[in-house]
Amino acid sequence: MSKYAFGVDVGGTTVKIGLFSEEGVVLDKWEIPTDKSNCGENVIPDVAKSLLAKMEEKNIPVEELRGIGVGAPGAVDDNGTLVGGAVNIGWKVFNIPQVMQKYINVPVKANNDANVAAFGELWQGGGKGCNNMVAVTLGTGVGGGIIVGGKILCGATGAGGEIGHIHIEDNETEECGCHNKGCLEQYASATGIVRLAKRRLAEDDAASVLRTGEISAKTVFDAVKAGDPVAIQIAERFGEYLGKGLAAVAGVVNPEIFVIGGGVSKAGEILISYVEPVFQKYAFEQCRGAKFALAKLGNDAGIYGAAGLILG
Amino acid sequence: MSKYAFGVDVGGTTVKIGLFSEEGVVLDKWEIPTDKSNCGENVIPDVAKSLLAKMEEKNIPVEELRGIGVGAPGAVDDNGTLVGGAVNIGWKVFNIPQVMQKYINVPVKANNDANVAAFGELWQGGGKGCNNMVAVTLGTGVGGGIIVGGKILCGATGAGGEIGHIHIEDNETEECGCHNKGCLEQYASATGIVRLAKRRLAEDDAASVLRTGEISAKTVFDAVKAGDPVAIQIAERFGEYLGKGLAAVAGVVNPEIFVIGGGVSKAGEILISYVEPVFQKYAFEQCRGAKFALAKLGNDAGIYGAAGLILG
Repeated sequence: MSKYAFGVDVGGTTVKIGLFSEEGVVLDKWEIPTDKSNCGENVIPDVAKSLLAKMEEKNIPVEELRGIGVGAPGAVDDNGTLVGGAVNIGWKVFNIPQVMQKYINVPVKANNDANVAAFGELWQGGGKGCNNMVAVTLGTGVGGGIIVGGKILCGATGAGGEIGHIHIEDNETEECGCHNKGCLEQYASATGIVRLAKRRLAEDDAASVLRTGEISAKTVFDAVKAGDPVAIQIAERFGEYLGKGLAAVAGVVNPEIFVIGGGVSKAGEILISYVEPVFQKYAFEQCRGAKFALAKLGNDAGIYGAAGLILG
Repeated sequence: MSKYAFGVDVGGTTVKIGLFSEEGVVLDKWEIPTDKSNCGENVIPDVAKSLLAKMEEKNIPVEELRGIGVGAPGAVDDNGTLVGGAVNIGWKVFNIPQVMQKYINVPVKANNDANVAAFGELWQGGGKGCNNMVAVTLGTGVGGGIIVGGKILCGATGAGGEIGHIHIEDNETEECGCHNKGCLEQYASATGIVRLAKRRLAEDDAASVLRTGEISAKTVFDAVKAGDPVAIQIAERFGEYLGKGLAAVAGVVNPEIFVIGGGVSKAGEILISYVEPVFQKYAFEQCRGAKFALAKLGNDAGIYGAAGLILG
């Protein structure tokens, strides 16, 4: 008898859903809109309805469903309770498995969406085969998710793996979104790279393709690939901050692998080439063996990781 | 029927052993010399003989022994294998439980001694009641042990929690023992505090009791307690480094509590008063709730933690 699991990734606009075989193959995936009305109280019922419809469509009796995994946009404790609610959906504090099980009585597990995406990369993505992994998401901010001994590291308040706010620069004058100054996120996120670029360009008049048009992480790394010397200096500064930050992370959790994802990682392997040598320089000897890989699952990491909570 | 466990802490000179009740009370403790001859091959048999003698003395049948926990001076994997040997005893790679069980056939668990001591502080010491803890040992070096969700974080190569080698100062000219420059250990260990003190004293001629006699972490903190302004500046610099370093650690593993031990911690609560405000300044908001406490078990942390591997 085949067995299945659903992976559910609840976002502020849409809920991504995947139907997975026990072997971790995604058999079907789709989205439903996130109904934020009434503090988001329709979201779980809407998801349950969509799952039940899919089970009917695919002729999957509830006995063949091993469970439902849920990634939620907030801190979740070990019991699946959304401890601080989720502001971008309007969710208050509630226990996700308990509510889901009112509609479909199978095992339900829930965790924070960033942690779940990290777990997805461990289970079926860039970290497959590893047990100790740090996922680094370079997007608008710098996020992270840490897997220790095959399990998600949640931390005391669900902030485990929030490496974007490690203090990395004493001489910063601008505030980070968190109100501290000199956070890793101020240099290694997409917006951080733009800041580094603007600062470098303001230093002198050296010619650069970056002086025309809008600057983004993409235009910076495109210019690096084209050999633009100024862009290369910007990439070096980015690599210095991120490599140093990840060396500190390695000194704490000693991972086998760093898996780099998020929009900035679309630059490809060249990004790692600016980070890894700096990491090697600053990391403690016994932690230097950590490998670097790009994330593989893109926006599907969340549904993979959610299903992996049940099947992994 | 009462149940018992032994906690065994293998050091380079002596092996510390404790007999514990199931409730975590130490009923007896003693030491035997560490026989380093023949690559330390007699150590486990010597320990087993000592445990069997104690069981006979106390009339404990093997059925009442829940198990034996062992802290070893090297990296240990999840199966209890000493993956890189232990140079200071001469031990090669071997599986500790397998060898111990040749002599006493009960459950045996082993882990690295620093991690085991951290676990002891969680189980019965300064971190009692917590599930997510970072133990910070300020001795000749800076060591650490991390507990996540009640379990020891080992890391990929057993270097989890080796926070002493986090890079914290770009402007350092002297090498750390690990050959990097600017490691936390260069400022927050006993020897690091002496370095900070000598550097401060060399800056000017300000009067200080530290200008006479030998400088140690103890004389520095004694002078701080006596109100010596120069010593206070040294403590502030120490606190700046350690607080900043622990803020980075908190951004990775988000602990409930930091438990500070090792020789330097004998200075008492005053030490925490220099670290915690800096930690609060640099830590990410969601991680700022971490408490600070002094270690309680001293040199017995190892036998407590080893017994805790079985009973905890």
